[in-house]
Amino acid sequence: MSHFLAEIIGTMILIILGDGVVANVVLKKTKGENSGWIVITTGWAFAVMIPAFIFGGISGAHFNPALTLGLAAIGKFAWAEVPIYIAGQFIGAFLGAVVVWLHYLPHWAATEDKGAKLAVFSTGPAIRNTFANCMSEFIGTFILVFGILGLGEVSVAPGIGTLAVGFLIWVIGLSLGGTTGYAINPARDLGPRIAHAVLPIAGKGDSDWGYAWIPVVAPILGAIVAALTFVAIF
Amino acid sequence: MSHFLAEIIGTMILIILGDGVVANVVLKKTKGENSGWIVITTGWAFAVMIPAFIFGGISGAHFNPALTLGLAAIGKFAWAEVPIYIAGQFIGAFLGAVVVWLHYLPHWAATEDKGAKLAVFSTGPAIRNTFANCMSEFIGTFILVFGILGLGEVSVAPGIGTLAVGFLIWVIGLSLGGTTGYAINPARDLGPRIAHAVLPIAGKGDSDWGYAWIPVVAPILGAIVAALTFVAIF
Amino acid sequence: MSHFLAEIIGTMILIILGDGVVANVVLKKTKGENSGWIVITTGWAFAVMIPAFIFGGISGAHFNPALTLGLAAIGKFAWAEVPIYIAGQFIGAFLGAVVVWLHYLPHWAATEDKGAKLAVFSTGPAIRNTFANCMSEFIGTFILVFGILGLGEVSVAPGIGTLAVGFLIWVIGLSLGGTTGYAINPARDLGPRIAHAVLPIAGKGDSDWGYAWIPVVAPILGAIVAALTFVAIF
Amino acid sequence: MSHFLAEIIGTMILIILGDGVVANVVLKKTKGENSGWIVITTGWAFAVMIPAFIFGGISGAHFNPALTLGLAAIGKFAWAEVPIYIAGQFIGAFLGAVVVWLHYLPHWAATEDKGAKLAVFSTGPAIRNTFANCMSEFIGTFILVFGILGLGEVSVAPGIGTLAVGFLIWVIGLSLGGTTGYAINPARDLGPRIAHAVLPIAGKGDSDWGYAWIPVVAPILGAIVAALTFVAIF
Repeated sequence: MSHFLAEIIGTMILIILGDGVVANVVLKKTKGENSGWIVITTGWAFAVMIPAFIFGGISGAHFNPALTLGLAAIGKFAWAEVPIYIAGQFIGAFLGAVVVWLHYLPHWAATEDKGAKLAVFSTGPAIRNTFANCMSEFIGTFILVFGILGLGEVSVAPGIGTLAVGFLIWVIGLSLGGTTGYAINPARDLGPRIAHAVLPIAGKGDSDWGYAWIPVVAPILGAIVAALTFVAIF
Repeated sequence: MSHFLAEIIGTMILIILGDGVVANVVLKKTKGENSGWIVITTGWAFAVMIPAFIFGGISGAHFNPALTLGLAAIGKFAWAEVPIYIAGQFIGAFLGAVVVWLHYLPHWAATEDKGAKLAVFSTGPAIRNTFANCMSEFIGTFILVFGILGLGEVSVAPGIGTLAVGFLIWVIGLSLGGTTGYAINPARDLGPRIAHAVLPIAGKGDSDWGYAWIPVVAPILGAIVAALTFVAIF
Repeated sequence: MSHFLAEIIGTMILIILGDGVVANVVLKKTKGENSGWIVITTGWAFAVMIPAFIFGGISGAHFNPALTLGLAAIGKFAWAEVPIYIAGQFIGAFLGAVVVWLHYLPHWAATEDKGAKLAVFSTGPAIRNTFANCMSEFIGTFILVFGILGLGEVSVAPGIGTLAVGFLIWVIGLSLGGTTGYAINPARDLGPRIAHAVLPIAGKGDSDWGYAWIPVVAPILGAIVAALTFVAIF
Repeated sequence: MSHFLAEIIGTMILIILGDGVVANVVLKKTKGENSGWIVITTGWAFAVMIPAFIFGGISGAHFNPALTLGLAAIGKFAWAEVPIYIAGQFIGAFLGAVVVWLHYLPHWAATEDKGAKLAVFSTGPAIRNTFANCMSEFIGTFILVFGILGLGEVSVAPGIGTLAVGFLIWVIGLSLGGTTGYAINPARDLGPRIAHAVLPIAGKGDSDWGYAWIPVVAPILGAIVAALTFVAIF
C-alpha cells in the first residue's frame, strides 16, 4: 500500500471513530446521549491508537499535517513527501466525516441544536477568545508532538509505544481538551468542517468559518515549535 | 480442545460478560443501575478480549459468524470449517444468555420495562429505520473486520495484538454503538434473542423478531466487504 | 520473602485499594462521592493487578482462598501449602481493612448510612435471595478461576498475562458485579467483615453475619468446579 | 539531556496534564465541567505515565521529591544528586502550573469558586483534620513508593513496568484519593501552590498555606518508611 493511501484510510478510520464518538454523545436519541467527557476522550484515544497500529509500519501513521510538518522541520521526514501526506490526510478526514454523517443518519433530524451538529464534525471554543484559543491549540499540539517524539526514542517491546501514543491522546483530551476541544490537527478539524458545509445535514447551521483558521494555524505552530524544542534538548 | 468446543465456550464467556454488563446497567436494583455507556462499552471490550486471549491460539477466537465468513471469503479460513464454527458460535451465544438470565435472576421481576429486558439479550435500534440501521451495522462490522485484519498484519510483542483487538471493540462501542447498539455479530444478537424467546423470563415482552434479521444480514455483508477491501488494498 | 508474607502483604494491598475505592464512592464528603460503578470497578481491577505484578513471581499471587483451593483441587498447587496461603490471605485482608478504616477516618462519622459503611468492608446482595446470591457468586468465581487458568496457558510477552488478569477482574465487576458486589473471594469478604465487627467505626451497624457464609462457600464451590471443568476440557 | 533538565521537563509535563485535568473538571464553562472522579483519576494516571515513558531512561523519572528521598534512604539513589533532582522537580512543577494557568486563561474569570481555582493547583482535604490528613498522605505515598519498588523488581517485557506504574497512579487516585486529593508528592503540591500565590489569577483566593506543609511532610515520611519496609521484607 502506498503512503498516500495509508494516510487516507488511516485518517478516515480516525475520523469515523473520533467524530463518531462525539456524535454518540452530543446528538439526540443515541444510546450514548450525554454520556460525557470520559466517553469522548476514551473514544478519541482508541480512534487514534487503532489506525496507528495498522498503518504505523506503512506510512508512519501521521494522520495529522501538523505532525507531518513538525517532523519535516527537524529532518525526520522528507519535505518532498509532505504534500502527498497532507493531501491524504485531508481526503481521509473528509471521507471519514461523510461516513459519520451516514452512520448517524436519522439522528441529525432528531437533534435541534445546530451547534451540537457542528461539534460532531469540528471543534469550537468553550469560551471564544482568539488569543487564548490559539494558545490552547498550540499547547495541546506541543504536548502531542513532543510526546510522540519522546515516546519514539524509548526502548520498549514492539507495540507498547503505540499503546502509549493512544494513552497520550487520551490524556491530552482529558486534561487539555476542556478549552477548545483539542483539534491539535488541521486535517481532523478542517476536513470534517468542509464535509459539514457541503453535506445535506438535516437542520444544520453555519460551519463557523470565522474560527476555522485557529485549529489549522495554531497546531502547525505548536508542532513545529515542539519538534524544534525536542531536538534542541534531547 | 476442538475448534468447535473453543468457539462454544469462548462465545459463551463473551455473552456472559457482554450481555451481563447490559443487564447490570439496564435492569433495576442492580449495583450498576444506570451507570451509563462507559460501563457498557468497557464491559463489552473486555468481554471480547478475555476469551480472545484464552482461545486465540486454539480456534482463532472468531466468536462471530460474520468474521468467520469474511475470513473464508478471502481464503484466510477453510470453508469446510465454516458450518462448525457458526454452529459453535450460536450454541455458545445461546448458552451464555441462559447464564446471564440465571445470574440476574431476581432482577427480571424487579424490572418493569420489557424493552430493557430484551436489551440485555439483543440489540435494538435507537431510531427504527431499516436502511439506516442496516448501514450502521454494516459500517460497524466493516471497521471490526478491517481492524482485526489490519491488526493481524502488525509486528508486535505477543499479546499486544489481542489487547488492541479489545480496544478496537471498545472504540466501536463508544463511537459507532450509539445507533443500533453494535451487534456487529449475528451470533451475539440472534443467539440471545432465541434465549429471550424461550426462557421463562419474568414479565418479558416480545423478542422484536421484525428487527432480528438486520443484525444478522448487515454484519455479514459488512464483514465480507471489509475483508475484500482489505485484500484489495493491502 | 516467604510465600506466607507475600500472600499477607499482597492481599493487604489488594484490600487497601479495593475496599478503598468503595469507601471513596459510598462514604460522604469524599472527593469521589457517588462517582459510580465505573470508579468502583476500575479501582478493583488495578487493586488486584498491582499486587499480582509485585507478588506473582513470589507466591503466585493467589490472594484468594477459592483460587488456592481450586488450584489444589487439580494438582496445580500443593495441598500442604494451602493452610499457610489461606491464613496469609485472611490476615492480609483483615489488615488491609484496618488501613482503609484509618485512611478514611473522619468520613465514618460523616456518613449516616450504616449499610454504606458495611459496604466498604464486605459485599451484600442487591436483592437478598439465598439461591440467587449463591449462584451469582458461583458464576463470578467460575469465570475468575476459569479465566485465570485459561490466561495462564497463553503464550504472551512477560507481563501481558498480568495485565489481562487485571482486565478480567475489571469485566467481572462491570458485568457480573451487579447482583452481589462480586466478592468472588472468601478472604476479601470475610476478613474485612471481621474488621468491621471489631473496629470502633463511628456509627456502624451490624456486620450482616447472616449473609457472611455465601461469599465464602459459593466462591469456593465456583472455583473448584471451574478448575475441574478447565482440566476436563483443555 | 541532563538529569536536572529531564526532571524539570518531565515534572512540567506531569503538572500540565495533571493540574490540567483538574482544571477541566472543576473550572466553569469547560468541556469537561463536572465530569467527575473517573476523569480526574484517568487524567492523572496518564499524566504520570507519559513522562515516565519519555524520561525513565534518562533520569529514572522520579518527578517527586518523596520518591527521590525514599530511594536515597535505601541506597538506590545517590544523596549527592538529591538536591539537583528536588530542585528540578519544584522548578518543573511551578512551570507546569504556569502553563495550566495560560491554557485555561478565560476560565478563571468564568469561575466564581475560589476554592475550585486553588484545587486546580494544589490539593486540599475533604474533611480538614491534621492527623487524618497526614495519615492519608502517608498511606497514599507508602503505597506509591512500595508499589514502584515492587514493580521495579518484576521481570516483564520492556515498557510493561511503566504501564503498571501508570495503573498504580490510577488506582491510588481512585481508591485513596478521596480524602486529601492524593498529593503524594511535595513538588506536585507546593510548586503549583507557589504558582497560585504569585500568578495574577482572575478572582483567586488565598493559597491555604496552613495546609501546605501536610502534602510536603507526610509524603516524605510515607516514602521513606515504604522504602525501608520494602528493603526489610524483600
